[in-house]
Amino acid sequence: MADKADRMKARLPRGFVDRHAADIRAVDAMTAKIRAVYELYGFDPVEQPMVEYTDALGKFLPDQDRPNEGVFSFQDDDEQWLSLRYDLTAPLARFVAENFETLARPYRSYRSGWVFRNEKPGPGRFRQFMQFDADIVGTPGVAADAEMAMMMADTLEAVGIKRGDYVIRVNNRKVLDGVLEAIGLGGEGNAGRRLTVLRAIDKLDKFGPEGVRLLLGKGRLDESGDFTKGAGLDEAGIGTVLSYIETGEVADNEGVAELAQIRALVAAAGYDDGRVKIDPSVVRGLEYYTGPVYEAELLFEVPNEKGEIVRFGSVAGGGRYDGLVSRFRGEPVPATGFSIGVSRLTAALKNLGKLEDTAVVAPVVVLVMDKDTESLGRYQRMVSELRAAGIRAEMYLGGAGMKAQMKYADRRGAPCVVIQGGDEREKGEVQIKDLALGAKLSAEIEDNATWRESRPAQFTAPESGLVEAVRRVLDAQKAERSAEA
Amino acid sequence: MADKADRMKARLPRGFVDRHAADIRAVDAMTAKIRAVYELYGFDPVEQPMVEYTDALGKFLPDQDRPNEGVFSFQDDDEQWLSLRYDLTAPLARFVAENFETLARPYRSYRSGWVFRNEKPGPGRFRQFMQFDADIVGTPGVAADAEMAMMMADTLEAVGIKRGDYVIRVNNRKVLDGVLEAIGLGGEGNAGRRLTVLRAIDKLDKFGPEGVRLLLGKGRLDESGDFTKGAGLDEAGIGTVLSYIETGEVADNEGVAELAQIRALVAAAGYDDGRVKIDPSVVRGLEYYTGPVYEAELLFEVPNEKGEIVRFGSVAGGGRYDGLVSRFRGEPVPATGFSIGVSRLTAALKNLGKLEDTAVVAPVVVLVMDKDTESLGRYQRMVSELRAAGIRAEMYLGGAGMKAQMKYADRRGAPCVVIQGGDEREKGEVQIKDLALGAKLSAEIEDNATWRESRPAQFTAPESGLVEAVRRVLDAQKAERSAEA
Repeated sequence: MADKADRMKARLPRGFVDRHAADIRAVDAMTAKIRAVYELYGFDPVEQPMVEYTDALGKFLPDQDRPNEGVFSFQDDDEQWLSLRYDLTAPLARFVAENFETLARPYRSYRSGWVFRNEKPGPGRFRQFMQFDADIVGTPGVAADAEMAMMMADTLEAVGIKRGDYVIRVNNRKVLDGVLEAIGLGGEGNAGRRLTVLRAIDKLDKFGPEGVRLLLGKGRLDESGDFTKGAGLDEAGIGTVLSYIETGEVADNEGVAELAQIRALVAAAGYDDGRVKIDPSVVRGLEYYTGPVYEAELLFEVPNEKGEIVRFGSVAGGGRYDGLVSRFRGEPVPATGFSIGVSRLTAALKNLGKLEDTAVVAPVVVLVMDKDTESLGRYQRMVSELRAAGIRAEMYLGGAGMKAQMKYADRRGAPCVVIQGGDEREKGEVQIKDLALGAKLSAEIEDNATWRESRPAQFTAPESGLVEAVRRVLDAQKAERSAEA
Repeated sequence: MADKADRMKARLPRGFVDRHAADIRAVDAMTAKIRAVYELYGFDPVEQPMVEYTDALGKFLPDQDRPNEGVFSFQDDDEQWLSLRYDLTAPLARFVAENFETLARPYRSYRSGWVFRNEKPGPGRFRQFMQFDADIVGTPGVAADAEMAMMMADTLEAVGIKRGDYVIRVNNRKVLDGVLEAIGLGGEGNAGRRLTVLRAIDKLDKFGPEGVRLLLGKGRLDESGDFTKGAGLDEAGIGTVLSYIETGEVADNEGVAELAQIRALVAAAGYDDGRVKIDPSVVRGLEYYTGPVYEAELLFEVPNEKGEIVRFGSVAGGGRYDGLVSRFRGEPVPATGFSIGVSRLTAALKNLGKLEDTAVVAPVVVLVMDKDTESLGRYQRMVSELRAAGIRAEMYLGGAGMKAQMKYADRRGAPCVVIQGGDEREKGEVQIKDLALGAKLSAEIEDNATWRESRPAQFTAPESGLVEAVRRVLDAQKAERSAEA
């Protein structure tokens, strides 16, 4: 035990969080539904480790506000640099390149897992968070992108988001590239400025057209006083970009033709009923996208941190990244895929009241009335019997007295407690106390003698009938919960 | 696309592995069974992040062969040191200390997750691996330790290990401490040497009594030429320790009394039938254990790397760590828990042929005979129909011709393919080709005309009856698989 002076402080590093039972169970239930959709679409799971060589991950993160550019890195004992993955796409690209010959292509795979960003933490902005990705590697055809967009729609409906409450918006980086070329930003030398323009457009949702105008021009000062340098376009250039975002009108190019094909495929499968839409304002912030980009936006409104009513916004996004695997190989390896932000989607479902209450029943608690080893053995046996019958149960393991044990059972949300003191023991009996009923009765404070008689809050049962008696209480509580629901 | 010269090499960092579909599905199925047992025992899930402050984790790893003592560490931008967790216990201790007032105690929780060791990788020794832990925090009573040992037994049986193929072995560090005190290793100043002795005993399985004798004395030279410094005991001391390990005989102390109580509780619940045993050679290598220690050993034999037949060995272990949470608080917080090595247990089940074949059926592949957008839309619609009926399906998305598409479907293990060229389209028909049957027929090369007629390898169906026709093939294949099993 540590002295107060040199006692260590128990604290989480900034930007990291602990996960509690309800959240873990809800996310598990949600990801199981996502997985079922991906499997239906013919995808198989594959997972990469959390650590990769830094150079294999590449530098594709937007909005880097840290010296090591958003990534947690450390040096191995052979001096090589390792990093925690910042997304699931870069490690997949490494995996596909390394196992290229053995994979049946086009290669459909999915994976969920933690990713890490070495960023300034903020509200809703974590340094470890979960993504759930699906990718198709090895086909240039935009039929793959169309399918991804439709799978996004099916996934959102599978987790409980109603048709009409979301839209999958699709655009094409090649169309945007055409616009940028038209205003003189073509060529390798302008890659940096092109990216700045794309990221400005990506902020339309957040800052509106006026904010984007500033980011396309000299720059934008935000409320906290931080200045974001702009793309430095002149008025004509800004006008061209904004007009394109607004109207979607643009000279014909390869990107436009691809979008037309996506539109046709989506229509053929019936997803043009508002589920999947072409939208010129979609760009996605990542540098590695090379063709179609797509994102899932939730349309229902929620209050933001400032109490304003806003659309919930994006919960998933992706696109075609034809260069990522090719970096490792001497041949083109086209690929497309998307990520679901698991925490964002969980938050959305919580808002909609659609987060599955997995209705896990808390354990029955067997109280410890006598503390000698023989008695403990007897209580332990009761617990074992209940468990063998498939009933969650535990013996109270602390040192406290009866009152504190009852309080413990209450805090645990136990459906009932089992009590056997010396008297009951001699008679070969146990007392069962129904805690849900006790809570109900004291809450209602009403005289309902008949009902109480038919289901007493505490009753005696033969020790040999323990399982049956507890099961009776659990069944009654279950029936009551269904009646209330 | 990269030039051959500056192309990046796609490679995994040493000691890390990719996980494939079969492994992911098998581990998911196994951990679901483990979770069910823990839930039955009244445990709830809770998870900590992968990153903690380095000082909060403490330095409790055995066998550190690296300068930074087995842990991956990096500095935050505020100069504080962060580390990847090396186990799930130290982060849990931090969590409990931080949330002490809000937790119902004794606090039962479980968690599975990745942990990281900055070690020299070797065969079966990874730098990222999965553990599945359960812990009870807040009770000094060894009834908790007894329950842990019994839960280990139930867990092994739940995942498919037969009674008799495993044993849960229990000992107590306090008993060992008594032995060490008797040979003059008592007191704070001898903590380091005590740990060296414990780790020597822990190697009994690996090196036998002679190896342990060397490690208790001057040290041991292994086959690779590495020398491990010993504990430096004299002959009398070595004799005392070895005699204790062999006979378990020792002067009475608190530890002996605790073991007697554990033995009684285990017997009361009927687990003294060989499932749970007291064993003086169990020590567990971690420094933080303070009382009962326990481990799950698999007894069946397997060949090791050298081809020798050996017992499979330990797949899980744990013990009481009364000091870990107390480090953070000005009061004693007793705790006990154990870890399952998920990869070790998976390997064991694979050896026993008990690794669940989740029998996921590969997707039906709709071939692409015509590549115009209208045709693609039609194939896409077929796929959507199949999926809507709950059948895994995909449209071939690559650019290849008929032959390569059939090869793709074969590599995927597709149950059948759907074919519609111009002719079929005009007649409103599709062709279904049963690939499992095709494989069977070409394997058997026997004339079984009647059977072939009743279930042809390829047949025509009306396009409107696509789902029904595919379902017929899947059902027939399923019936065949059950008949073979």
